[in-house]
Amino acid sequence: VSRFAVTVAYDGTDFFGWQVQPNHRSVQEEIESAFQLLCDGKRPRIHGSGRTDTGVHARGQVFHVDPSRKNYSPDKWRESLNGLLPQDIRILEVREVPADFHARYDAVRKEYRYYIFPARPMPPELRRTRLEVGHSLDWTRMQEAAEALQGRHDFTSFSAARGPEEADAVRTLYALELHPDPDGFYLRAVGEGFLYKMVRRLTGALLMVGGGELSVDAVTNLLMNPNRESCIRTAPPHGLFLWRVHYGAPDED
Amino acid sequence: VSRFAVTVAYDGTDFFGWQVQPNHRSVQEEIESAFQLLCDGKRPRIHGSGRTDTGVHARGQVFHVDPSRKNYSPDKWRESLNGLLPQDIRILEVREVPADFHARYDAVRKEYRYYIFPARPMPPELRRTRLEVGHSLDWTRMQEAAEALQGRHDFTSFSAARGPEEADAVRTLYALELHPDPDGFYLRAVGEGFLYKMVRRLTGALLMVGGGELSVDAVTNLLMNPNRESCIRTAPPHGLFLWRVHYGAPDED
Repeated sequence: VSRFAVTVAYDGTDFFGWQVQPNHRSVQEEIESAFQLLCDGKRPRIHGSGRTDTGVHARGQVFHVDPSRKNYSPDKWRESLNGLLPQDIRILEVREVPADFHARYDAVRKEYRYYIFPARPMPPELRRTRLEVGHSLDWTRMQEAAEALQGRHDFTSFSAARGPEEADAVRTLYALELHPDPDGFYLRAVGEGFLYKMVRRLTGALLMVGGGELSVDAVTNLLMNPNRESCIRTAPPHGLFLWRVHYGAPDED
Repeated sequence: VSRFAVTVAYDGTDFFGWQVQPNHRSVQEEIESAFQLLCDGKRPRIHGSGRTDTGVHARGQVFHVDPSRKNYSPDKWRESLNGLLPQDIRILEVREVPADFHARYDAVRKEYRYYIFPARPMPPELRRTRLEVGHSLDWTRMQEAAEALQGRHDFTSFSAARGPEEADAVRTLYALELHPDPDGFYLRAVGEGFLYKMVRRLTGALLMVGGGELSVDAVTNLLMNPNRESCIRTAPPHGLFLWRVHYGAPDED
């Protein structure tokens, strides 16, 4: 087989998330349909590094695929797929990988970014990709809380239920940083893996700290005392991007 | 009368420009309708600093208005208008001004920005607000050409016909600068005033220079020999923002 790893960006606004589901538009469905048109009707299954929820965007989602068509170079795949895909999905890169590469199991790190406009009203062209926060935020306290959340912890209090409780909610958060940008700031979260809705709940927690609703001590307590029913709010999906999936050593760029 | 100067941002994607026209959605029409609902059916005319074309965005368009309702503070106007306006128009600021203030005649300077992604393919959430250029660009040459265009010149070769030729096409371009940003770069144009389609044609000229289609000398020649029928292409509207209108002295920030 020829296996390809494909980096894809999408505007999640008009998708019910990554994963195929009946009667709803998904990113996976659109991409598999484009491959099918290029493979004489044979529909390959694509395997993402993970799902993204309804409304969440991606700058660098990665999937692997074994298409039945063999005479296309990586660049030809990229161009042909972009010619067929809708405007809210773009293939950024295609590369050939070993036959045992797996987009999900071989991922060693993921980076998410959550974009925030910390004052109202927000210029309207940002409304699909950035959260408008209607009040000022205490930057120093948010940074303190972000630092407290970094490292290896049980993140149960910062995840949401998806079926049975996950047996092991201990994860390593390599970085949780606030970065100013021309339209406000973004939260950068880098980890070996994330629990369900964890980035949006980390963001929600930091916004509660920034707005004075939650103390940095309370954040530390939530790490010490794992509690799925914690008071933490989940930030809405439209500010979140799956930014990059890393497959190299954990200390690469 | 109470006169207000209002700063407004809009996502121009779904408008046929600023100006009211029959059977087409315009920014001016939407804003006048919102005022009408707040003024017991009396529809005030709003006076913009200038028009923007179909598909062009604004971060800081300014208009003045004399609404018949007298008991609203500037903040109350802003909140009430934003409550009625569609999501692609946001009132950013309302301030009371002298009764002889005029949004168009008192403007001393305007700043436009044109956003460019200089490689293909572009992340899709940028597709409404940034031009995707399918090849690399010669940054040094583009900067040389931008510098040559700054200053006081006859810009006929960089404008488009709108009815009769403008008698005087001499304008001062205070700045024409390239600024890198996280998603590529933007062109910043500051002038006392601009001819029809001038910013989009300045952008088109710089992109032709960056792509090797036009020399810096040819740009200088087009300034020296005004020619409405010049070869300059007009960049598409969706990358362009009316960024700010200045009413202070020309040397203010």
